[in-house]
Amino acid sequence: MRKLKDIKPLEFKDQKLYVIDQLKLPSKIEWVELASYLDVAKAIKDMIIRGAPLIGIVGAYGFAIGIKEKIDQPDILKNAEDIYKTLKETRPTAVNLEWALNRMFEKLKNLLSENKNNQKIINALFKEAKIIELEDYHANKSIGGFGQILIPDNSNVLTHCNTGALATAGWGTALGVIRSAYEEGKNINVFVDETRPYLQGSRLTAWELLQEGIPHKIITDSSAGFLMSKGMVDVVIVGADRITANGDVANKIGTYSLSVLAKHHGIPFYVAAPSSTFDLNMDSGKDIPIEERNPDEVKYCGQCMIAPEESPALNYSFDITPAENITAIITEKGLISEINRETILKFFNKVVSK
Amino acid sequence: MRKLKDIKPLEFKDQKLYVIDQLKLPSKIEWVELASYLDVAKAIKDMIIRGAPLIGIVGAYGFAIGIKEKIDQPDILKNAEDIYKTLKETRPTAVNLEWALNRMFEKLKNLLSENKNNQKIINALFKEAKIIELEDYHANKSIGGFGQILIPDNSNVLTHCNTGALATAGWGTALGVIRSAYEEGKNINVFVDETRPYLQGSRLTAWELLQEGIPHKIITDSSAGFLMSKGMVDVVIVGADRITANGDVANKIGTYSLSVLAKHHGIPFYVAAPSSTFDLNMDSGKDIPIEERNPDEVKYCGQCMIAPEESPALNYSFDITPAENITAIITEKGLISEINRETILKFFNKVVSK
Repeated sequence: MRKLKDIKPLEFKDQKLYVIDQLKLPSKIEWVELASYLDVAKAIKDMIIRGAPLIGIVGAYGFAIGIKEKIDQPDILKNAEDIYKTLKETRPTAVNLEWALNRMFEKLKNLLSENKNNQKIINALFKEAKIIELEDYHANKSIGGFGQILIPDNSNVLTHCNTGALATAGWGTALGVIRSAYEEGKNINVFVDETRPYLQGSRLTAWELLQEGIPHKIITDSSAGFLMSKGMVDVVIVGADRITANGDVANKIGTYSLSVLAKHHGIPFYVAAPSSTFDLNMDSGKDIPIEERNPDEVKYCGQCMIAPEESPALNYSFDITPAENITAIITEKGLISEINRETILKFFNKVVSK
Repeated sequence: MRKLKDIKPLEFKDQKLYVIDQLKLPSKIEWVELASYLDVAKAIKDMIIRGAPLIGIVGAYGFAIGIKEKIDQPDILKNAEDIYKTLKETRPTAVNLEWALNRMFEKLKNLLSENKNNQKIINALFKEAKIIELEDYHANKSIGGFGQILIPDNSNVLTHCNTGALATAGWGTALGVIRSAYEEGKNINVFVDETRPYLQGSRLTAWELLQEGIPHKIITDSSAGFLMSKGMVDVVIVGADRITANGDVANKIGTYSLSVLAKHHGIPFYVAAPSSTFDLNMDSGKDIPIEERNPDEVKYCGQCMIAPEESPALNYSFDITPAENITAIITEKGLISEINRETILKFFNKVVSK
């Protein structure tokens, strides 16, 4: 077993939340405090932190911070609703944020119904956020453990966006699987899609792989198909922002194209995500709200303008990969193969009914 | 008929060659003189000018400039060989450069065998380069005329890289078809792939479309598949750097992925290129040399570093699209449908035997 580093994108200490400003990576590692729930909302919206699981975790802490700010004011439930709404509206596509906020709100209601004093309520909410964080970390280790069996020794693995420690509480989902495979001693090379426009691949995934000493090469997003045609890709593995009851997956823009290309070339296409990414109340991918971000993200690269000022751009941040393009979904509870409504519901019922 | 502007990427005046520095677009239009054949070689290598047909034209002028520099030295044929080799080696994938240089070298040999004086030789070589330039311009207008019938009214057209006036003597190949369709009065919207890493789409194609007032939207390269899945793309049209005898097409990296995606969605996929792009001596796409450029082009975006310094990157500049993914090839001599060795050879024989 190789020994890998533990990269953490957030730290909670003395009831204060610190995160790495991911806009500054890889050129510098800068920790910033998110002191108010509005700081948290802004950090999520501006993508200072990103990644579906991490957004959920930071959102949970943000809810606790918000309640701490407002606990002495009358009508705490009304204030809680405002905080919930402000945080939830920052990013629409990933379900983890909504999931975490619902859980925090439920916790608050229970605490209020138990007539706990304010200090106890605050402490319990921070503890709940910490539990969400720890659950995510251990889910990732488990996803890695299940997923790494799908990564052959001496293989080339292609991944998209950042799904590593920086997107989660640590370790990562799809990149966590790669980490676990490497930890197991497998020889792998990772092709890292740069992932325009925000460049999560070249800025964040490459940086993580470099810390771990995992061999990798950055490629432009449009190179992936050509590498597949040359037999240079053995496995594709990506994360997810939301998985619907039928197995459709919302993930970073470009995922859908990769899934079609992988299918065309007979290359396995895996999705790695914790259970909190499943939205079993949503029937299929066509119901998922797709975030359209500021066109300037396409027209600028960092501070550099790369297009005529007057030219419009279209910036869908996510796309939908249909279940039939996915070879298997890797969760902390095991693998789901042959993705469809029946296998997914069976998988969760089976686990739930244990 | 709408009236469109005539954008020219080069000007030849008083035996001096001026080109727009395409590295500076779209933020400024800066003309630079290419005073020596080494200037020309550097401009091609550094992509101050680019685009397969334009590289051919500028290469032809570069050959004439080189001969003018060396004409008073002994052994002009040896010097001509050096000039030819220096220019040819700047970019390996596109065939137009080699084609134009071969033609210029033949012309020189004929002139020498006719015992022309030095001034007459220089004049005749510059005239030959001018003819190559004019042939390309008129070929483009003809490609546009044939190709525009394939662009439906009220349609969304997706294109990749820059194949416009800036890639040719003027008007353009694939973008020339779009220009011609718009000139005919058709309502079209163009989705412009930004085309990483060099961003020919967002920097150059968007700039050209803006000059012409043609509606367009810039997208990241990895958005194309998702737009197709949403029914937002009616036609894909691209250029070519080399077309082999069996109809395989080398073109800007990302073209292959688009062709697979278009086929998957039942969307017509057209290639527009002049006859000089066909390399009938080459059997299939697997023989085409694929240029691998400096990895820093992937790790930088303009002056901004967008990846860890120590991370390696892989930068294939072109890819190969197999004939079976192509709906039709549009040339200045007409359309070739059902692309294969027989239809291509028949097409050229038919025309040649006229």
